[in-house]
Amino acid sequence: MSTFGKLFRVTTYGESHCPSVGAIIDGCPPGLELDVSDIQVQLSRRRPGQSNLTTPRNEKDLVHLQSGTEHGVTLGTPIGLLVKNEDQRPHDYSETDLYPRPSHADYTYLEKYGVKASSGGGRSSARETIGRVAAGAIAEKYLKAVYGIEIVAFVSSVGKIHLPALLSPPSLTPSDDNEDNDNVDDAISEEFRSLLTTITRDEVDKHPTRCPHSQTAEKMTQRIIRAKDASDSIGGTVTCVIRNVPAGLGEPVFDKFEAELAHAMLSIPATKAFEIGSGFRGTEVPGSKHNDAFIRRPDGSLGTKTNWSGGVQGGITNGEAIYFRIGFKSPATISQAQATAQYDGTPGTLAARGRHDPCVVPRAVPIVESMAAIVVMDQLLQQEARKAAASRLPPIKTLPPTMVMPKGV
Amino acid sequence: MSTFGKLFRVTTYGESHCPSVGAIIDGCPPGLELDVSDIQVQLSRRRPGQSNLTTPRNEKDLVHLQSGTEHGVTLGTPIGLLVKNEDQRPHDYSETDLYPRPSHADYTYLEKYGVKASSGGGRSSARETIGRVAAGAIAEKYLKAVYGIEIVAFVSSVGKIHLPALLSPPSLTPSDDNEDNDNVDDAISEEFRSLLTTITRDEVDKHPTRCPHSQTAEKMTQRIIRAKDASDSIGGTVTCVIRNVPAGLGEPVFDKFEAELAHAMLSIPATKAFEIGSGFRGTEVPGSKHNDAFIRRPDGSLGTKTNWSGGVQGGITNGEAIYFRIGFKSPATISQAQATAQYDGTPGTLAARGRHDPCVVPRAVPIVESMAAIVVMDQLLQQEARKAAASRLPPIKTLPPTMVMPKGV
Amino acid sequence: MSTFGKLFRVTTYGESHCPSVGAIIDGCPPGLELDVSDIQVQLSRRRPGQSNLTTPRNEKDLVHLQSGTEHGVTLGTPIGLLVKNEDQRPHDYSETDLYPRPSHADYTYLEKYGVKASSGGGRSSARETIGRVAAGAIAEKYLKAVYGIEIVAFVSSVGKIHLPALLSPPSLTPSDDNEDNDNVDDAISEEFRSLLTTITRDEVDKHPTRCPHSQTAEKMTQRIIRAKDASDSIGGTVTCVIRNVPAGLGEPVFDKFEAELAHAMLSIPATKAFEIGSGFRGTEVPGSKHNDAFIRRPDGSLGTKTNWSGGVQGGITNGEAIYFRIGFKSPATISQAQATAQYDGTPGTLAARGRHDPCVVPRAVPIVESMAAIVVMDQLLQQEARKAAASRLPPIKTLPPTMVMPKGV
Amino acid sequence: MSTFGKLFRVTTYGESHCPSVGAIIDGCPPGLELDVSDIQVQLSRRRPGQSNLTTPRNEKDLVHLQSGTEHGVTLGTPIGLLVKNEDQRPHDYSETDLYPRPSHADYTYLEKYGVKASSGGGRSSARETIGRVAAGAIAEKYLKAVYGIEIVAFVSSVGKIHLPALLSPPSLTPSDDNEDNDNVDDAISEEFRSLLTTITRDEVDKHPTRCPHSQTAEKMTQRIIRAKDASDSIGGTVTCVIRNVPAGLGEPVFDKFEAELAHAMLSIPATKAFEIGSGFRGTEVPGSKHNDAFIRRPDGSLGTKTNWSGGVQGGITNGEAIYFRIGFKSPATISQAQATAQYDGTPGTLAARGRHDPCVVPRAVPIVESMAAIVVMDQLLQQEARKAAASRLPPIKTLPPTMVMPKGV
Repeated sequence: MSTFGKLFRVTTYGESHCPSVGAIIDGCPPGLELDVSDIQVQLSRRRPGQSNLTTPRNEKDLVHLQSGTEHGVTLGTPIGLLVKNEDQRPHDYSETDLYPRPSHADYTYLEKYGVKASSGGGRSSARETIGRVAAGAIAEKYLKAVYGIEIVAFVSSVGKIHLPALLSPPSLTPSDDNEDNDNVDDAISEEFRSLLTTITRDEVDKHPTRCPHSQTAEKMTQRIIRAKDASDSIGGTVTCVIRNVPAGLGEPVFDKFEAELAHAMLSIPATKAFEIGSGFRGTEVPGSKHNDAFIRRPDGSLGTKTNWSGGVQGGITNGEAIYFRIGFKSPATISQAQATAQYDGTPGTLAARGRHDPCVVPRAVPIVESMAAIVVMDQLLQQEARKAAASRLPPIKTLPPTMVMPKGV
Repeated sequence: MSTFGKLFRVTTYGESHCPSVGAIIDGCPPGLELDVSDIQVQLSRRRPGQSNLTTPRNEKDLVHLQSGTEHGVTLGTPIGLLVKNEDQRPHDYSETDLYPRPSHADYTYLEKYGVKASSGGGRSSARETIGRVAAGAIAEKYLKAVYGIEIVAFVSSVGKIHLPALLSPPSLTPSDDNEDNDNVDDAISEEFRSLLTTITRDEVDKHPTRCPHSQTAEKMTQRIIRAKDASDSIGGTVTCVIRNVPAGLGEPVFDKFEAELAHAMLSIPATKAFEIGSGFRGTEVPGSKHNDAFIRRPDGSLGTKTNWSGGVQGGITNGEAIYFRIGFKSPATISQAQATAQYDGTPGTLAARGRHDPCVVPRAVPIVESMAAIVVMDQLLQQEARKAAASRLPPIKTLPPTMVMPKGV
Repeated sequence: MSTFGKLFRVTTYGESHCPSVGAIIDGCPPGLELDVSDIQVQLSRRRPGQSNLTTPRNEKDLVHLQSGTEHGVTLGTPIGLLVKNEDQRPHDYSETDLYPRPSHADYTYLEKYGVKASSGGGRSSARETIGRVAAGAIAEKYLKAVYGIEIVAFVSSVGKIHLPALLSPPSLTPSDDNEDNDNVDDAISEEFRSLLTTITRDEVDKHPTRCPHSQTAEKMTQRIIRAKDASDSIGGTVTCVIRNVPAGLGEPVFDKFEAELAHAMLSIPATKAFEIGSGFRGTEVPGSKHNDAFIRRPDGSLGTKTNWSGGVQGGITNGEAIYFRIGFKSPATISQAQATAQYDGTPGTLAARGRHDPCVVPRAVPIVESMAAIVVMDQLLQQEARKAAASRLPPIKTLPPTMVMPKGV
Repeated sequence: MSTFGKLFRVTTYGESHCPSVGAIIDGCPPGLELDVSDIQVQLSRRRPGQSNLTTPRNEKDLVHLQSGTEHGVTLGTPIGLLVKNEDQRPHDYSETDLYPRPSHADYTYLEKYGVKASSGGGRSSARETIGRVAAGAIAEKYLKAVYGIEIVAFVSSVGKIHLPALLSPPSLTPSDDNEDNDNVDDAISEEFRSLLTTITRDEVDKHPTRCPHSQTAEKMTQRIIRAKDASDSIGGTVTCVIRNVPAGLGEPVFDKFEAELAHAMLSIPATKAFEIGSGFRGTEVPGSKHNDAFIRRPDGSLGTKTNWSGGVQGGITNGEAIYFRIGFKSPATISQAQATAQYDGTPGTLAARGRHDPCVVPRAVPIVESMAAIVVMDQLLQQEARKAAASRLPPIKTLPPTMVMPKGV
């Protein structure tokens, strides 16, 4: 359905060709200073028309708050908001009346609903994500104010152009499989790990591709322009880091932190893959090298020496940085001619008209950050309930030694 | 929490060291022939002690049905079931009273709950998955009986040993990035795609590793034995295919088919990565080569020529085979000595005692299949509600031409 | 939270003093003809200013559809809608800055949220019900089109003025307790039962009180005017009947039809009581007289001779008319002076300014109907899923005789 | 479905004629001392065979804890438990193979599920409530330990025999409607209000009817025996009070405290009516007499002088005692001959065999208490999340005067 979250809940409505898109955000804690500009800043990072790499549609995407705040402070009641669709022309996709776009949602929406919306894929429209970005911005405001949580996403690949700092290639030939080669350090470079601890949104936004490595960013630009010039499209990946999340978030067993995160990320249009921490590459190294040994932090708490786990162990956050990567396929709508079939099966050629993003990953960055914020906020509230309830219990006089909390924790 | 699903719902309880583990499965359609043996067969594939590759604990894992059926037929009421823990010794993990196991859930469970269970990671125990496998077996019985749906998972890699038929390596060097190289066919081989259409559980079970390619299976065995001999562990991947799923499943926008699937898969212990269809590799090729062109099937319906989408477009199934891959990290519990810290921060060395799987992927196969079955069943019921409700509506007399269902569909 | 329903879901936002109130309605079946006027008619019945019995605020309450339909047909996607608050003056309740209104939500909202909204009771505002009424109107459109379901509510009492046809008084003195007196027919009169089978909204709307018995309606009017003249308020009851609901709706065990209905009704502001069928009075008669004997209906199906059950047995609808009664307390906000205490405990006298309904039941009628429609729609979709799924199963060859469906059903 | 609650969740399974009934209780705070006996005491109050007023079936109803505790302390993980059905004979209800019992769930279950369980009404069995009582006992243990919350239910009427202290009869004749008669004090007597503040379970259990007024209890006994001797049955009401609930519980707008409570109560078999506070009677008096004026409590906090609201205002608890009344119809299964129809419509006479309760209210008392405890616990956890999250926010420097928390609160 169109609702995400248990205690911090987002419900969205709207598609491309209706009067507005919007959302209701329920469960925001009361007493948070919240201004329209807190939301607008992320919406503006999401909107098209920011550079020559994105669709030239110039939607202003101004958010209108409807409820839930007074004098710039949240009341704890649902926050209603909407963004008008300035470009509600029914559609200029006339071929798509006959042809379902290959790899687009046109056909599956028809199979699901049995009626054909003028926009074809209906809610699979990127405009639906506006509500999510608004909700995420609200969650982030809280998370930053209370825990100093920082969520930064960036483009880690476009086509075959990867951020070199990111990841060395996994070794896929069995000949590589020997003790000397069982090293996870090869998989995730020191440089990349360092990037995760320092990267900021300002750095990310320096280049229109939102890749924080300028030389790679330049190559990515060329790759996107090549796709655009060929009336084609190209995919890519977004990597995201969440810093300063307290330990203990994530609900065993079905709603593990990474399970909710994967759910959230794969609900973003065009996503096909998710990995957390060392991800697929980490499956190739032995436990002795992949395990994150514990160390005492300066403040006396436990931390880990390495962080191949990506901040989550057993589905619960451990206080280390959470990082993950999402794969976005190349956009399905291209104006290049495609040999395909009409709805009725007649073979033919489709060349979609209209203005389309040749590559979605730069604009996906704030969407990824927003869904991450929503997941953290929702899991945080669930853990707050448990912790507060447990903290009120009288101490147990004779807790068995095995259950005694080890000293120092 | 411990419940998964909206209309087909599974709730589980239990950990390693309590009297039993079990589940309540709610929402199973009434009138389905269901016998204990339908469930037992998958539980037996899951249980340890099946070969020298798994932990020698010999748990019989016999399921006891408590409710929801009569005379071998489901009543539509909740199915209660349990499996006794025959091995409930409090634990023989005495070092773990002092040490949280690195990359295990011991520390995070303590952070979350504030009390220390004797098993450390509590519900992160693999035994918790018994309830899921039982639920999945019930869902599968229905899906097979009504739609002929086939769900087959297999081991596609152990450490660096990959099923050669599976996937060619993604090209990660920018130098490879040119028009001649933009070919998704390189990414997912013809041989692999053919395997997906034919593979059966019998073939998968021929080898204890559950890899359907005998030569690779043998190398995987050597890799697992190398880990075992070194008191170490190793990760791997499981690939799963679901055939014959009707088009139209998956709930826009937050509960897309692949979002629910990713949620389900990343709720399985030790998972770190998920990809559907062409996944991460698919992000590297342009839309013109990645898009799945439509074709008319012999029965007149629309199919796709290729299936890089993995059976899902816009979050909704399109009737093609659904395939996905899950990454499992190497098990955290190893008996090799590890330099780490105690709960109180004191540095030291931990060598976990007890019997542990050096590699979980062979046993993970039925768990993956089960979670897949639960997701399909739950999404199917949601779509049944919509379709049935829509089908009862009187036809609209003058539906605008753009909303008219294209001929032939 | 602000969401109601599982498959047909309503989420609302807004309070009195913000730009708009609105709702997102998710799960509406696709292909339903739906026009703004379908919604407006019930909103207009709800709005204030319809007669001298209600508050003179003249809110036009025009609904603006934002999404989910095209060319007057539902798409199956979420329907966003809003109604502007034309009267958003911060508030003219200055005494209520010092005084929590007795029996109002001012104090409890402050306890819950810790911040003080200018409207005091925030979401307890009657304007929040606009979203519900809109959602209910959409559900009703479907239910009427497909099943001919009719939902009619009316005012059955104001203060001590009861619809005489309604209910004879329960006998509360033990001396009445003897065999001769064990008669449920005394409790619910024949005249009342007949009214339930024929009453229409047109008849209900003939009188501003919405009581369908003109003499009683006149007395009710006098009672309300007496309250108004005394700067006081008065409570009452609303009775509602739902006709033509198919048998089989209601989810055992926690979400029984009447449990969901009671939940829905007691979520309406100012409600304090709910009873279905013979209700409290029915508890006084023996089973032999209260049981609804089965009879064969002309069409061969089973019906019941009487209907003390109110159309629900074991939490599941049986195809008979569903009727229930809801108690609304007298409105808390009165302009008569009240001896009470300020937020800080200082004793004092409060005379609330502003314009307030002396009696809410006439305007509550469409709200009750709407919540009833939402419950029926949601339960219907859940049962559709089950029925459709069960209907696809192959027949069981040798069903045990006890499980065989009795002939004729 | 078979799950109740959001953060404190109960899922039950089982019916009369299967191996066991049971439940999974998820979300119990960790660190609570919990022993089997805490649960058994309420199960024993619920079980049949306690006096000659109930069915002579002697089920021991011993609970078996399966998980979620260690050394008598909760772990925070799901608590699995079960009670064996010692009396699993398929059934001795042979007439009910032909006849659906009037006003029972036999017919509606068949309509819902399309298969006939040997027990007829399946999950409508009173045995299903065992899981609820167990869950409620766990919730109560927490609520008592942390807040000193006391939940006491008692029988307030059997047939026409009402606890005289309870309620004076509502005046239903219009002639009574004048200013002199607008007094809510007549509706709920001082004696009854006093009873609510002091009543204990020990006092309730002194008499087998569980009516705390010995003379009335005696008359109730006679009434039940009269029903039993006539092979008939009789209904009644249960009143429940919850003391010491903190202010601020209840989720606007759909999940108001009383809405959840009504949902919970009307999910108990045989219930038909619910009222909170002054309930239906309170609708008859004007606001000026019904409003609960605020007073300063000795500890400086705000209380109310009267409590016609029943501890809930605007759907949120205000710290006063919560009291409510539930109507239970007379049990449908009677051994007296009834003229009715068979499943196939054939008219005939049914005289149900077997052993049945002539009146359920005495045994319903612990079920009502348990469902009340579950609702309070679940709402408490939701409010804990909000409060904890809000409490961590930095103070707002310049909160507008209208939003400033009034002094003294």
